[in-house]
Amino acid sequence: MRPISFGSDNHSGIHPQILQAIADSNQGSAASYEMDEESQELKKFIKTEFGCADSFLVMNGTAANVLSLNCGVQSFESILCTNISHLQMDECGAPEKFLGAKLIAVPHTDGKLSVENLKPFVIRRGDQHFSQVKMVSVTQPTEYGTAYSLDELQALREYCDKENLLLHIDGARLGNAVYTLNTTFKKVISYADVVSMGGAKNGLMMGELVLINNPKLAENFKYFRKQAMQLPSKTRFFAAQFLCYLKNNLWLEIAKSQCEMALYFEKQLLQAGVRVNYEVQSNALFCNLSKSMVKSIREHFFFYVWDESTFECRLMTSFDTKKEDIDRFIEKLKSQLQSFQEVNHGKALS
Amino acid sequence: MRPISFGSDNHSGIHPQILQAIADSNQGSAASYEMDEESQELKKFIKTEFGCADSFLVMNGTAANVLSLNCGVQSFESILCTNISHLQMDECGAPEKFLGAKLIAVPHTDGKLSVENLKPFVIRRGDQHFSQVKMVSVTQPTEYGTAYSLDELQALREYCDKENLLLHIDGARLGNAVYTLNTTFKKVISYADVVSMGGAKNGLMMGELVLINNPKLAENFKYFRKQAMQLPSKTRFFAAQFLCYLKNNLWLEIAKSQCEMALYFEKQLLQAGVRVNYEVQSNALFCNLSKSMVKSIREHFFFYVWDESTFECRLMTSFDTKKEDIDRFIEKLKSQLQSFQEVNHGKALS
Amino acid sequence: MRPISFGSDNHSGIHPQILQAIADSNQGSAASYEMDEESQELKKFIKTEFGCADSFLVMNGTAANVLSLNCGVQSFESILCTNISHLQMDECGAPEKFLGAKLIAVPHTDGKLSVENLKPFVIRRGDQHFSQVKMVSVTQPTEYGTAYSLDELQALREYCDKENLLLHIDGARLGNAVYTLNTTFKKVISYADVVSMGGAKNGLMMGELVLINNPKLAENFKYFRKQAMQLPSKTRFFAAQFLCYLKNNLWLEIAKSQCEMALYFEKQLLQAGVRVNYEVQSNALFCNLSKSMVKSIREHFFFYVWDESTFECRLMTSFDTKKEDIDRFIEKLKSQLQSFQEVNHGKALS
Amino acid sequence: MRPISFGSDNHSGIHPQILQAIADSNQGSAASYEMDEESQELKKFIKTEFGCADSFLVMNGTAANVLSLNCGVQSFESILCTNISHLQMDECGAPEKFLGAKLIAVPHTDGKLSVENLKPFVIRRGDQHFSQVKMVSVTQPTEYGTAYSLDELQALREYCDKENLLLHIDGARLGNAVYTLNTTFKKVISYADVVSMGGAKNGLMMGELVLINNPKLAENFKYFRKQAMQLPSKTRFFAAQFLCYLKNNLWLEIAKSQCEMALYFEKQLLQAGVRVNYEVQSNALFCNLSKSMVKSIREHFFFYVWDESTFECRLMTSFDTKKEDIDRFIEKLKSQLQSFQEVNHGKALS
Repeated sequence: MRPISFGSDNHSGIHPQILQAIADSNQGSAASYEMDEESQELKKFIKTEFGCADSFLVMNGTAANVLSLNCGVQSFESILCTNISHLQMDECGAPEKFLGAKLIAVPHTDGKLSVENLKPFVIRRGDQHFSQVKMVSVTQPTEYGTAYSLDELQALREYCDKENLLLHIDGARLGNAVYTLNTTFKKVISYADVVSMGGAKNGLMMGELVLINNPKLAENFKYFRKQAMQLPSKTRFFAAQFLCYLKNNLWLEIAKSQCEMALYFEKQLLQAGVRVNYEVQSNALFCNLSKSMVKSIREHFFFYVWDESTFECRLMTSFDTKKEDIDRFIEKLKSQLQSFQEVNHGKALS
Repeated sequence: MRPISFGSDNHSGIHPQILQAIADSNQGSAASYEMDEESQELKKFIKTEFGCADSFLVMNGTAANVLSLNCGVQSFESILCTNISHLQMDECGAPEKFLGAKLIAVPHTDGKLSVENLKPFVIRRGDQHFSQVKMVSVTQPTEYGTAYSLDELQALREYCDKENLLLHIDGARLGNAVYTLNTTFKKVISYADVVSMGGAKNGLMMGELVLINNPKLAENFKYFRKQAMQLPSKTRFFAAQFLCYLKNNLWLEIAKSQCEMALYFEKQLLQAGVRVNYEVQSNALFCNLSKSMVKSIREHFFFYVWDESTFECRLMTSFDTKKEDIDRFIEKLKSQLQSFQEVNHGKALS
Repeated sequence: MRPISFGSDNHSGIHPQILQAIADSNQGSAASYEMDEESQELKKFIKTEFGCADSFLVMNGTAANVLSLNCGVQSFESILCTNISHLQMDECGAPEKFLGAKLIAVPHTDGKLSVENLKPFVIRRGDQHFSQVKMVSVTQPTEYGTAYSLDELQALREYCDKENLLLHIDGARLGNAVYTLNTTFKKVISYADVVSMGGAKNGLMMGELVLINNPKLAENFKYFRKQAMQLPSKTRFFAAQFLCYLKNNLWLEIAKSQCEMALYFEKQLLQAGVRVNYEVQSNALFCNLSKSMVKSIREHFFFYVWDESTFECRLMTSFDTKKEDIDRFIEKLKSQLQSFQEVNHGKALS
Repeated sequence: MRPISFGSDNHSGIHPQILQAIADSNQGSAASYEMDEESQELKKFIKTEFGCADSFLVMNGTAANVLSLNCGVQSFESILCTNISHLQMDECGAPEKFLGAKLIAVPHTDGKLSVENLKPFVIRRGDQHFSQVKMVSVTQPTEYGTAYSLDELQALREYCDKENLLLHIDGARLGNAVYTLNTTFKKVISYADVVSMGGAKNGLMMGELVLINNPKLAENFKYFRKQAMQLPSKTRFFAAQFLCYLKNNLWLEIAKSQCEMALYFEKQLLQAGVRVNYEVQSNALFCNLSKSMVKSIREHFFFYVWDESTFECRLMTSFDTKKEDIDRFIEKLKSQLQSFQEVNHGKALS
C-alpha cells in the first residue's frame, strides 16, 4: 500500500463508484467525440439541472481554464486574475500560448478578488496600445481554500456587467464551495459567463467540464477544443464519470467528506499549536512550519511547501482521507515540536 | 447491447485486460504528473525495450502528433506530410495553431510518401521568404491501411539524413504495422527521430505516447507538454494502461486480431464482388459503394464515407470485432447487391 | 549609378513625386498613429472614392495580407489560395503564425483560381475535425502577371456568397490590373470583402493599405494591427505617400508606364525568339532560358530564376524602367543566343 | 504651421539631415531585403563600432522589442519587465501573441529594476508547471526618463549571468542615456545580450535596429523577422537613415539637444512652482497638474496625462523643440496658476 499523501487531491486514485461507472460504460461500440449516449445524456443533464446553454468535456484543468477564457477573449484582450491564481502561476504560460492574450496579475485578499482590487486595472478602454481588459477570472474555492460568498459573487457580477466584462469561475474544486456555502451548483454557476468544473480533483480518473451560460460564447467551442488538442475520442468514459459524480449526490458526499476532514485537520493543528493561515472553506489548509519540521514530517507524509521564502505549507485532504491519516500526521508533528522544544530548552540551559 | 460499428477503432471500448490494469493501479495515493511508479516504470521499459532516449505520456492522438512535430520544428519551418494525412485533414489546424508553422501537403502513392514525392518540396533552403522545410511526417500504417516496408522506411531515413530533415512517424496504430511486417516496435521506431504511438485506437481507454530517439529533441518536452495543456494529473492510470498493453504481448494479440479480421473482411468483400482499393496491411479497408447501398447498410452498421465525391467508404475492424459481425455485414451487403441487380434487371427488361 | 534591375519592382527607389510628398509633409509636429491630418484625409478619400467602409495603413505587403485574412478568419478556419501565391510561397509562414490558421494550396490556371479549382476544397462544413474553409484569397494581378477579368471576379464573388466564404484580393500591384482592365479601383475592390493594396511595389518608399468593404470586418482591426506590430508612429509620411499616389492619377501614370514597358519587353523577346509563358497583363514576364544564358545575362542585369527545375525566369519592369534598359537586355540576350547557336552549329559540323 | 507638441518625440517629423539621406539613397535600382549596399554598410558599421555579432533592421519599436525577446525566449519561458514598461503596458499584447510566452510585471523604483526587485520573481526553476523565467528586459532610459548608471547595468548583468538569464535593453531613446551618462553606445550595449535601438523617436522617419551580442541568438533572426511581417523591402532607405544618424554624431547632436531642452523645461517648471517627479536624464518630464490646468493648457499644447487617477502628466521634448516653445508653455502655465490662485484667493475672502 502506498503511503497517504496530503500533497494534492490529485494524488488520490479513482473513487470506487466512478471506476464502476467506467466499467459499466464499457459495453459494445459507441460513437466517439461526444456523439455517444453518455455524452448526450450529460449535456442534457447540465442544461436541465444547471441551466447552462451548453457544456463540453475536456481532458484536464489547464484546458478547461484556457478554453473557458477562449470563449470570450480575443488575442488583443486581457484577463484579470489574482497573482496567485493557478492561471497565472501554474499553467506554464498555456493561456498566453493558446490565446495569444495577456493575463494581468491582480493583488488579492485571502485569495479573492474584490471590485476594489479590480478597479485600478480596468483602464484605457479603447486605447489601441493597451491590451483591452475583457474578462475577470476568479477561483471558487480559491487557491487558499477560501470561498467567495454569494454576495461577493453578486458584487463581481454587477461590476462585470457595468464594465462590460465577462466573468469566469475556475471551479477545479467547485463542489467544495457549493457544499461550504450550502447552496447549489446552479446558483454558483449562474454568476458566471463560463465555468471550469473540475473532475480529477474530485475523485474522477480524469476529465473536466466547461459550462457556458451565454450561448454566443459556445458557438465555436467544438472547433477550438479540437484545435486545442482537447477532443477525447472515447468520450463515453468521460461522460459516464461525470454522470456518476453529478447524479445521486456523489459530488456532495465527496465534497462533504473532504471539507470535514480539512476542518478536523485544522482543529488538530490548532490544538498542536499551529496556526492556520486562512479560513478553511474547502479541502486545503495553509500553515507555516519550520524548515526542519517540514523535512522531518515529509519523510512520512508528502505535502507541498507553498512559499519557499516563508515555508508556508499546503495540506490537502481528498475523498479518501481518513481521520487516522490526519491523527498520524499530528502525532509526527507533535513529536517534532516536542523534540524541537527540548533542543531549544537544552540550548537555553547550556 | 449497442450495435457493432465499423466506423473506427475508437468506437470500441476498453480492452478488458486494460480496464483491469486501471483497477489494479487504483490503490492508495500516488504522486501525479509522471512522478508515480507506473509512469517511471513505463519510461524505463521504453528506454530498455525500444531504445528511445525518452518518452512522454499525452492525452490524445492530436497532441501526440503536434507535440512530436514541436520537438524539432520552429515556427518558421514546415512539415511535409501527405495530402490525406490525419495531420493535414483531421486535426482542425492544431499543428498550425500550436507550432505557428506550416504543413505542406504532398501527393502520395497509396497513402505513402517516397523520396520522389518529397523531392519537389525540398527547395529554397536558406531563403528567408520561404518557410524552411524541416521535418517529414509519415503515417505507419497509413490512413489507407497500407504499411511502409522497412526498406521504404530506410530510404526515407537516408533521404532525411542527406537533406538534414527530421523524420516523424504518426503511429496511431503502429502495432498493426509491426505485426504485418513481422518486425518489432524497436525496429520501426529506430527509423524515426520521434514517434507518436497510439493507445486509444488499440484498446486503451485513452492515452498516447511520444517516443523520442534524439535526446536533444526531448530537452524541453515537459514544458511544452504542460503549455500544450497535455499534462495529465493522475498519470498512473495512463502508464498502467500502456504497461499492460506493451508488456506480455497484449499489443500483439490485439494487432493480430484486428488485422486478421480486416483480411477476413477483405476476403468476404471480394467474394461478394466488391473490390478493395488498397492492400490490407492494417485494420482498415476502403471500397467504393453506391450511395443507396451506403444508406441502406448504415441502417445496421456504422461506417464512414471517406470521399463524398466518389463514395469511397472506410470499414474498420477493432480488437473486439468478431467474424459474425463481418458475416452479418456481408449478408446485408449481398442482399442489397441482389435487390440492386433485380431493380436494374427490371429496368433493363422494361 | 547602380545597374538596372529586372529583379523586382521593389528594387526601384521612390518615385520623385512621392519623395516630394514626404518632404512636404515634414512640417512641424503631427499626432502619430493615424491621428494626423494626412491619415485622416486618406481615410476619407478611400471611403469617398472607393466606397470602402474603412482602411488602415500597414508597413509591408506581408502584413497587409495577413491582417486582411485576420479580418475574417479565426484560427480553426482556413484560407484557399493558389499553390504559387505569395501567401503560400513567400511569407515564411507568417499567416500560420499570426492567425494560427491553415492555408490550403489550390491548383491554379495561369495563376488564377476558378470556381472549378475551388470546389473540391470546399468540403466537410461543420465537421469539427476539419479546419473550416472560410476565405478565398486571389492575387490581382497574379504572381504570373495575368489579371482576373471582371467576369471572373464576379463568378468568384457569387461562389463565395453562395458558399458563405469571404473573398480577399492580394493587390500588391492592383493598379496594374486596373489599368489593364481599363476599369477603376472602386470596381475591382467592390468584388472583395477585404483588399491588400500595395504601395512599395508601385513607387512608394514603403507602406500598404488594407481596404475593408464589410464594416463588421473592420471592427477590431486597430487592435490586431497594433498587436501584429504593424502600427507605424509617424503615419503622416505613409498617408502622404498614398495621397500623392492615388490623387491626381499618379497611380495610373505608374501602372501605364510599367505595363507598357512589359508589353514592349514581350515584343522584343518574341522577336528574339523567346516565348513568353503567360499573357502579359501586368509588369511581369515569364520565359524559359537555358542555365548558361541565365548565368551570362545576370552578369549585366539582375532577375530571378522562378523555378529552378525548369529555369523559368521572371523579368519585371518598374516605374523607372526605360526602353533603353530593355533594349540592352535584348542585345545581350541576342548575342548569347548567337554564340550559343554558333557553338551548336560548330558541334553539328564537327 | 502645425502647433508644437510635447506629446511625444514621435510627433516630430524627420530630421532634415535624415530626409536628405533618404533622398541621396534614391538613386537607381538596389537589391531589396537588406542585400543593398546601405544595409550591408550599416551591418558592418555596427559590427565594427559597437562590437555586436549582428544587427537587423525592423520597422517599429514594438517589433524591435518583440523580436529581441524572441531571440532568446521560447514559448514556455517568461520575461521580467517593470509594471510600467512599454512592453507590458503599450504593446497591446504583441509579445504574448508572437512569442506565446509570459510577461511578468515587476515593481520598479523610479522606472528601474534592481536585483532586489527581480529576486522574488526568479523562482521555481525546473518546475514544469511554471513558465520559466528566461530574460530580463530593462528600458534605457526608462519610461520615466531616468537612466540606469553603468554600475546599475553591471549589477544586472552579473545577476543575469549568475541566474542564467538573458538581458534585453529596450533602447527606443538609447542615445539620450548615452549622452546623459557621457558614455558610448558600445559601452551600454555591451551589458546586454540583445538591444532594441530606436530610430523613429530620434528624428528618423521610421525604422529600428535589433543589435545582438551573442551570435547564437542571431541564428534564425532573419526567418523570424520575415514571419513577424517585419522584413521591409526597400531596406536601403532604412539603412541610409541609420547611417546618417549614427555616423558623424548626428545622434549626439539630437540627444544633446532634446536632453538639454528637457533640463531647461524642468528648470522653468520648478521656477513656476511645479515639482518634477523623477530625475531628468532623458527627454521626458513628469509632473502633476490639476485637471483644470491640463484642460486649459492642452488647448495650446498637446501632452499626455500619464496616470488618469493622479493627473500625472508627461511632457516630452524632441529634436526640434525650441526654448521659445517651452517658454510659451510656461507662460500659459503661469497664467493658469495665477488665475487659479486668484479664484482660490477670492474663495478664501468670500
